[in-house]
Amino acid sequence: MVTTVACQPVPARRADAERDVAAILEAGARLLSADPAAGPADVATAAGVSLAVLHRHFPSREALVDAVLDRAADLADAVLEHECIDAAPAPEAMAGLLRSAWEVLDRHRRLFVAVDPAPATEKDREHRERPLRGVRRLIERGRRDGDFRHDLPLPWLVTTFFAIIRGAAQEREAGRLKPEEVGHVLATTMLSLLAPAGDRSR
Amino acid sequence: MVTTVACQPVPARRADAERDVAAILEAGARLLSADPAAGPADVATAAGVSLAVLHRHFPSREALVDAVLDRAADLADAVLEHECIDAAPAPEAMAGLLRSAWEVLDRHRRLFVAVDPAPATEKDREHRERPLRGVRRLIERGRRDGDFRHDLPLPWLVTTFFAIIRGAAQEREAGRLKPEEVGHVLATTMLSLLAPAGDRSR
Repeated sequence: MVTTVACQPVPARRADAERDVAAILEAGARLLSADPAAGPADVATAAGVSLAVLHRHFPSREALVDAVLDRAADLADAVLEHECIDAAPAPEAMAGLLRSAWEVLDRHRRLFVAVDPAPATEKDREHRERPLRGVRRLIERGRRDGDFRHDLPLPWLVTTFFAIIRGAAQEREAGRLKPEEVGHVLATTMLSLLAPAGDRSR
Repeated sequence: MVTTVACQPVPARRADAERDVAAILEAGARLLSADPAAGPADVATAAGVSLAVLHRHFPSREALVDAVLDRAADLADAVLEHECIDAAPAPEAMAGLLRSAWEVLDRHRRLFVAVDPAPATEKDREHRERPLRGVRRLIERGRRDGDFRHDLPLPWLVTTFFAIIRGAAQEREAGRLKPEEVGHVLATTMLSLLAPAGDRSR
């Protein structure tokens, strides 16, 4: 069994004055993941604000898309740089990360792949790659400590992490996994996959 | 270690007279997976045939798309109904399926999700769902025989199968997995994930 550590994503600060911006960025992330060509008018409608309000905060489509990507990168950073990720033993940190933050990481990945499939600038590449590096760092630590397997390539283990949270998101959307069981199913799956040969007791 | 069984997908019969059709269907599958709006002219160019030749075999876009989907379903059927899948013990059958047929199954899944996200007819649904049912049947058999785990939902295990072969295809496209190592990496990953708790020796 996996014990959950008290790892929660750092909650975004949402002062009342920032409510419109938060709604716009939330709607922007959702729409742009599904359709990278979505425009400011679609986002304003989905956020429940007028186009004028959206334009006051984001004068151009480029500014809007930049802000959506920045926020997704910040959220992913927050969960991956949370103290628990580096402090707890790697298996517990992995379970905690999956239980509390799989949606943030899945959304980041989906958004960047949809909007920015071939990042042009160093900053874009950095934003896009950072969560992968965070997950890789955690798996590397688990390998160093003898908690995770060595017989499969490290980049492949990182890929399966993201492939599996993508699968979980699809299962939940299809109603085949209940919201309250996703974290446990993901943690059990990923720890089985990461455990060294001969050790499936976790 | 997993022993490979001599399971190969049934090779498609390609008489000389069928070469154009085969090239058209192959190019159609590739193009439609990436862009469900691809048209007969794109497919003809990619297949290296004239549009007139394509039209001789497939008078309408609908006929072309139907034929591409039918062929993908037939190929998936062939690998899943191969005698080895039902005869060998489930772990060996799973390893053999992944080694010999992961690309056929990944392509089927990608194609049907792209072209036919919400199948309208019973036949379309049937074509789309059949490979999932084949994989589910194999995992069920492994559970009955005590070879595969019972502590995760069956539909979730089927989902991880397809999520993981999708991940492998992306890794190979990105050059991070060599063609000759994909089968072994996939079999090792999936058997770790399916093994009952306390048994990681396979």
